[in-house]
Amino acid sequence: MKRTSHIPELRAMVAQEKGRERVIALVPTMGYLHRGHLTLIEQAKKSGAFVVVSIFVNPLQFGPNEDYSRYPRDLERDARLLEEEGVDVLFHPTTEEMYPRPMVTYVEVGQLDSMLCGAARPGHFRGVATVVSKLFHIVQPDLAFFGQKDYQQYLIIRRMASDLNLPIEICAVPIVREEDGLALSSRNVFLTPEQRREAVILSQSLNEAERSIQAGERSAREIETRIRERITRESHGVIDYVEVRDAEGLSEVSDIEGPVLIALAVRFGSTRLIDNKVVEAEARV
Amino acid sequence: MKRTSHIPELRAMVAQEKGRERVIALVPTMGYLHRGHLTLIEQAKKSGAFVVVSIFVNPLQFGPNEDYSRYPRDLERDARLLEEEGVDVLFHPTTEEMYPRPMVTYVEVGQLDSMLCGAARPGHFRGVATVVSKLFHIVQPDLAFFGQKDYQQYLIIRRMASDLNLPIEICAVPIVREEDGLALSSRNVFLTPEQRREAVILSQSLNEAERSIQAGERSAREIETRIRERITRESHGVIDYVEVRDAEGLSEVSDIEGPVLIALAVRFGSTRLIDNKVVEAEARV
Repeated sequence: MKRTSHIPELRAMVAQEKGRERVIALVPTMGYLHRGHLTLIEQAKKSGAFVVVSIFVNPLQFGPNEDYSRYPRDLERDARLLEEEGVDVLFHPTTEEMYPRPMVTYVEVGQLDSMLCGAARPGHFRGVATVVSKLFHIVQPDLAFFGQKDYQQYLIIRRMASDLNLPIEICAVPIVREEDGLALSSRNVFLTPEQRREAVILSQSLNEAERSIQAGERSAREIETRIRERITRESHGVIDYVEVRDAEGLSEVSDIEGPVLIALAVRFGSTRLIDNKVVEAEARV
Repeated sequence: MKRTSHIPELRAMVAQEKGRERVIALVPTMGYLHRGHLTLIEQAKKSGAFVVVSIFVNPLQFGPNEDYSRYPRDLERDARLLEEEGVDVLFHPTTEEMYPRPMVTYVEVGQLDSMLCGAARPGHFRGVATVVSKLFHIVQPDLAFFGQKDYQQYLIIRRMASDLNLPIEICAVPIVREEDGLALSSRNVFLTPEQRREAVILSQSLNEAERSIQAGERSAREIETRIRERITRESHGVIDYVEVRDAEGLSEVSDIEGPVLIALAVRFGSTRLIDNKVVEAEARV
């Protein structure tokens, strides 16, 4: 595996492979890799592509009171994992390499960016869309892989790619979970043992919601209320949002029909966890 | 010369040339071509590149009360001119091809986009940056050519390319003028014979300003006032703005030193004309 933190060097590596007609895949990450990331990489490898993994904790997508400075980082451990996965290039730019001068250009994906996680984190998705746009222009991949844990982020990137005619296929990879159901996240490391035990309520309440819908429940508000009540009753988690939305455009729904996204964000102490499930409601007979 | 209005067909043509190691140049235009455009194309040809010219009157960059619907169009005349210039591909997409569904993604170049022409035309440069971003992703050129008549647009595109790491060299081409000094513009066709005669005051007052600076005048406000007074005295033009700005970042200046942009926008009847001059002030002895 090659490693570089320099844009021109990365571009030269990619250009060489493009000259050999290789398909280029990008897996953009913020590092502190877990099995969720490795699943993205395995999917990228399966495509037969030349796989570039980027590790960059992007300051632009963190709010002033968020966890940018304490976001977990361990580049050498990450590099060993990527080496084992057979990744071709690790691109780990510095902040100065990505932002050599103050940015004045931003990519904004309206409508999708101000709800759910965007409501609690103003500017977050603008920062995400902008840095992903930069990474896309730097790497110029044919394929890019995103995890469905960040479902809203995936939809935003997909819409950005479509609206701006990016010549890149955006590939989604399902959520990877711990044995007890907790969605893998680099932030899980911040949970105390008690919070870690309690956090399982997120996936459990999503599973219960899915069963309710499969059993015929069609009220989005009713589903949201049941999830909120269960989380509040069975944990110390503080709910940021619990929402049932249209799975394609994230618009509000009252009656559940077709595929819906059930998405939630809950704070355990200062650690904010997100999880979601896409549920396909069968037509009522 | 090949012609297409379809994105996939255009991409296939470009990919074939890239496979032959050809440099790709894009000259984005709104059509109704004049010698200014042809100068851009000649510069592109000089680079030895495979030259793609796009003609697309972009609704996104016109305000609700602006001249989108009456903007002059003559595709067949344009095509003949491009053929004569030895252009390789004319890309003339329909609005449906460029905007198959409502856009939610926009590229915003802050700071540079709300002053000068941006003040009078809110949303204009957002529309420009967004459509140019789309054209860049569609054509994937190595070089792109912009005229300095739209100096603010050129700076915005250059900054966008830099901030978003677009792998494209942005090339500026000097203003082309009629014999009497009027800057070429597709909108000149709207001028009545009297307005056409009066419009020469724009370049004349810019030339006079340049001479004043060369003669030692260093007050930006004084230069602006003299231009305003002369235009008001010698024509029926209604001034939108006359500004002396830093030529790199368009920030306000009071004392003229280094390169400054003198830019103006003046309406003759319902036709809004712009012109500008970059003047390098020699250090005072």
